[in-house]
Amino acid sequence: MKVEGRRRVVLEDVRPSVDGGAFPIKRAVGDEVVVEFDAFADGHDRIACTVLHRRECDSEWQEAAGEHVVNDRWLARFTVGTPGMHVFAALGWVDAFGSWVHELGKRLAAGQDVSVELQIGTSFVLAAARRARGDDAATLRSAAARLREDDRSAALDPELQALMRRYATRSHATRGPELRVWVDRERGARSAWYKVFPRSFGTLRDVAEIVVPHAASLGFDILYLVPIHPIGQTERKGKDNTLGAKSGDPGSPYAIGSLQGGHTAIAPELGTLEDLHALVAACHARDLELALDIAFQCSPDHPWVREHPEWFRHRPDGTIMYAENPPKKYQDIYPLDMACDGWPALWDALRDVFLYWAAQGIRAFRVDNPHTKPFAFWEWCLAEVRREHPDVIFLAEAFTRPKVMRRLAKAGFTQSYTYFTWRVAKWELTEYLTELTRTDSIEYFRPNFWPNTPDILPLHLQQGGRPAFTSRAVLAATLAASWGVFAPSFELLVDKPLAPGREEYAASEKYERKRWELDDPASIAPLLGRLNAIRREHPAFWRDRGLAFHQIGNERLIAYSKRAGDDVVLCIVSLDHAETESGWTDLDLAELGLDPGTTFAVRDLLDGARYLWRGPRNFVRLAPGAAHIFEIER
Amino acid sequence: MKVEGRRRVVLEDVRPSVDGGAFPIKRAVGDEVVVEFDAFADGHDRIACTVLHRRECDSEWQEAAGEHVVNDRWLARFTVGTPGMHVFAALGWVDAFGSWVHELGKRLAAGQDVSVELQIGTSFVLAAARRARGDDAATLRSAAARLREDDRSAALDPELQALMRRYATRSHATRGPELRVWVDRERGARSAWYKVFPRSFGTLRDVAEIVVPHAASLGFDILYLVPIHPIGQTERKGKDNTLGAKSGDPGSPYAIGSLQGGHTAIAPELGTLEDLHALVAACHARDLELALDIAFQCSPDHPWVREHPEWFRHRPDGTIMYAENPPKKYQDIYPLDMACDGWPALWDALRDVFLYWAAQGIRAFRVDNPHTKPFAFWEWCLAEVRREHPDVIFLAEAFTRPKVMRRLAKAGFTQSYTYFTWRVAKWELTEYLTELTRTDSIEYFRPNFWPNTPDILPLHLQQGGRPAFTSRAVLAATLAASWGVFAPSFELLVDKPLAPGREEYAASEKYERKRWELDDPASIAPLLGRLNAIRREHPAFWRDRGLAFHQIGNERLIAYSKRAGDDVVLCIVSLDHAETESGWTDLDLAELGLDPGTTFAVRDLLDGARYLWRGPRNFVRLAPGAAHIFEIER
Repeated sequence: MKVEGRRRVVLEDVRPSVDGGAFPIKRAVGDEVVVEFDAFADGHDRIACTVLHRRECDSEWQEAAGEHVVNDRWLARFTVGTPGMHVFAALGWVDAFGSWVHELGKRLAAGQDVSVELQIGTSFVLAAARRARGDDAATLRSAAARLREDDRSAALDPELQALMRRYATRSHATRGPELRVWVDRERGARSAWYKVFPRSFGTLRDVAEIVVPHAASLGFDILYLVPIHPIGQTERKGKDNTLGAKSGDPGSPYAIGSLQGGHTAIAPELGTLEDLHALVAACHARDLELALDIAFQCSPDHPWVREHPEWFRHRPDGTIMYAENPPKKYQDIYPLDMACDGWPALWDALRDVFLYWAAQGIRAFRVDNPHTKPFAFWEWCLAEVRREHPDVIFLAEAFTRPKVMRRLAKAGFTQSYTYFTWRVAKWELTEYLTELTRTDSIEYFRPNFWPNTPDILPLHLQQGGRPAFTSRAVLAATLAASWGVFAPSFELLVDKPLAPGREEYAASEKYERKRWELDDPASIAPLLGRLNAIRREHPAFWRDRGLAFHQIGNERLIAYSKRAGDDVVLCIVSLDHAETESGWTDLDLAELGLDPGTTFAVRDLLDGARYLWRGPRNFVRLAPGAAHIFEIER
Repeated sequence: MKVEGRRRVVLEDVRPSVDGGAFPIKRAVGDEVVVEFDAFADGHDRIACTVLHRRECDSEWQEAAGEHVVNDRWLARFTVGTPGMHVFAALGWVDAFGSWVHELGKRLAAGQDVSVELQIGTSFVLAAARRARGDDAATLRSAAARLREDDRSAALDPELQALMRRYATRSHATRGPELRVWVDRERGARSAWYKVFPRSFGTLRDVAEIVVPHAASLGFDILYLVPIHPIGQTERKGKDNTLGAKSGDPGSPYAIGSLQGGHTAIAPELGTLEDLHALVAACHARDLELALDIAFQCSPDHPWVREHPEWFRHRPDGTIMYAENPPKKYQDIYPLDMACDGWPALWDALRDVFLYWAAQGIRAFRVDNPHTKPFAFWEWCLAEVRREHPDVIFLAEAFTRPKVMRRLAKAGFTQSYTYFTWRVAKWELTEYLTELTRTDSIEYFRPNFWPNTPDILPLHLQQGGRPAFTSRAVLAATLAASWGVFAPSFELLVDKPLAPGREEYAASEKYERKRWELDDPASIAPLLGRLNAIRREHPAFWRDRGLAFHQIGNERLIAYSKRAGDDVVLCIVSLDHAETESGWTDLDLAELGLDPGTTFAVRDLLDGARYLWRGPRNFVRLAPGAAHIFEIER
């Protein structure tokens, strides 16, 4: 079957796109989308291209002019201004008038007779005049009259050429695939998370009183609480994850549900819905927002176990299957059977959990173990929630295989946990950050860097003391646009493992109530506050793009710059937690926006020290775990 | 809207594919298709995958078992056995029984009670027994009985596991995109073309008598004639492309059409349709086949100019536009307006040209300047011709921008002219061949390497003498699975340009009748014959895959190997046309299938010389333009 034979332009390889358009790329409000595509036609005619774009809910397209870069590659840019789904498509057509002007120039240069050519040009311009209105039509008619009278200079008039572009016939234009851009509010792209167990501070009211001012003063954006729901009694875990809780053991907040309710209830020991509303308000008053932790699993006492036994897997002996990773058993948790025969109702119920908390003013969720639920569920559920609340942020807590983590990001998670927690050596950090920021992954996978979590006390924090904590804080806060800490364990340098070689906390906060001294003089909270202040001041830290590594002649020192427009920051961090390290830089001056050989001053944003540097080679010496975050003065 | 929630496996990045499946990949009969894809599910369940494949015209699918390679990447292989379109699709599903067996093993190792587990396994096996028939069903029922009686060894029985794979329920399997493979006969993938101007030998009968035995004796596969149609009189070009032909000047065979007919006629001076049939038969008798040159353009005398003036562009003065590339003018040629209002009838007429010659027994066409006709035309036209004749080979003569050339290959051209003609230096050849053989281009772009054409006498052939010709012949014949020469100019070392610095032949055969001495003792025809014989003997030369470059410490020597299965050939070619060159190899022994440190013999297939080599470093010395084509003896 013949397609339209007059559609001569071909469009190929339109980027950015994820899996050929199966998933949207991600941006935040105010970001630019730089669209690139191959466009060409048969023969020697010139072509013109544009990119159409709009919010998905709008009907009118806007246009971004395409420009030819090199080798049939075209480029167009537009800015996304509102949260929600946007769409764009490349459009290309044969530029008949442009081809005629181009060839006319060559004919004139060769001294050829062009009288018949000018008649051809006249008919192009008259046809455009018929498509135009008002002044434009009049201008075109008068240009046509000049051409008809053999005035060849009329053809080269820039005003005529602009009008001819505006009124070009696109009746046989080729349109590329319609691609999507999901646009988040700013915190979807950059954020600093402060995670706490609320019970360790008392009730939600105590959190509002103690934790909110503390986290806000340290410049964090998002205060995130582990699950606040009632905790099951059956098979409750005791201290250090032991079987058989003693009286008074509070249980793991991830064993969700009791007679007091399930995923839409608040544990009575934490407070009431009013207390939550008060906490939300206290956060907002400090430019902080509250995030909840959603873990789709149930304690044996969860109301759904009685109300919807069909949502769980049953064993032939009639019991419900608890969570297992053979030979390990988690008797206090029943996984949901997401692919049970009753899945449609189950999925609705889970979506309604997000909608319930969204109705309470929550706009950020950390999702526990999303990789144990079907990808199709997340794609559907997150889209459903966003249909009502396009400003909701979802953070995927999936520490699993790379393709699984990437697929969750494609399915719609705003941000993702990463392997940063275990990337320690210079080559590991360089390789991993290159993958995150210099491959297609940057279009949809937004890393959120955590030096620790309630489940992970990595070996280097156990062994490195304070220098390990400061070094990891600087790396997390400056390498990624989003980072977070499990607090206050991190700032208070808690480093005791459950057992030698185990990456779990001794006396884990998951299983017992703690009491913390936030004003401990040994705390590194002031450093965290300074890092967040620097991040707020420097647009270079607001996105994951613009990261470049620089050579430095010491394997225990890492150097990298971040850049956004004119803002450039150079970080040099010691990866050594025991010795002072020194080395000579070999800076990529072009990446820093510096001319070779110039002298420049670098000012350390951490301690205010100022150094005069020259060219790529400069000497650096850093105490264990210390860092420079240099602003470059020109 | 919810998709099927129980379809838990995700399939991504299925390869090989071209532009996400927009175009088929290419293979030849007997080739293997190695399908790779990412497949994974949520959670910890095991999955199983297969690749379905069939001829597009068949209804029944065949299966190729998938195996997990690493990091969620899967692989399956199948062989394509018949010319025409084939389709394939990956399929993946959760392997419930496999997951159960895997976990059972871990439970047994931990000494856990598995009695309830065995009941679960029993129900899996009984369900499979209901899907199975005959002996298989009986075997499954007896395995279920053993499991029910607590016989845990029954679960690990390989026969049971094989049966469970065969009768796995795929009711919620995920199916990847349906991708296409165009399968050519062998000559679509490897061929040696011998191009002549038939009139220089007399008539088609003379070609059958003189050229057919000559080309066949040199081992060429395809004898290809420049256009054989009547040549226009109006504006006919004289010698050396001059305006104003003299009486007796035969004109360019690319100025197609006269009162004697157009694209489906034979020039009377060449003979009749019966003569063509005789020539086709003479070719077949020598395992050679005849290719025609199809140039969709018309002389002013072509019947279509009178019968279908609407197929041409008209100027306001009523004349038809001749071909121009301002300021150059080609008054003897009228281009067809492929996007005219009457394009559907024009396209049909052009397709019918191919069908007419196919009906005369022609199965190979070289297409002149396809890049000046719409890509959509070729995609439609080639598919139409192949619907009747899936064995037709189309060679695209497009010397233009890379993306345009690749698009023509995607649109269906079997083989393509390339930049080889101008790639001379070692780095140029290495870079270009790497692009052709190590990128996705190898899935659809089959290069055909020509050292010369009637339009191109490259500078190195003008300046390098016989060594340039021999070196270029060896490179063309051994680097690409298809090659060709414009003959007999090439074998007779014709090297005189139209003017210094011009890449055109002096006294071009395009504008005058030549007389050639095929048995000239200076001819390099014996080398061409030897090269084609070596190509036929060595499967390593039958495909473009399997090419690897090896280090050799001299910029004027190039070393590369080709490999197919056990067949490995190592070529070392001198790029110097004046001096003897020598150097030490640094062979990639693994690529040659050799163990480090072993001694091996290399035998030169060109002259039979034999050398004992050891390890990667061996000494080579080559006369100007000379080459080794080494068979490796183990």
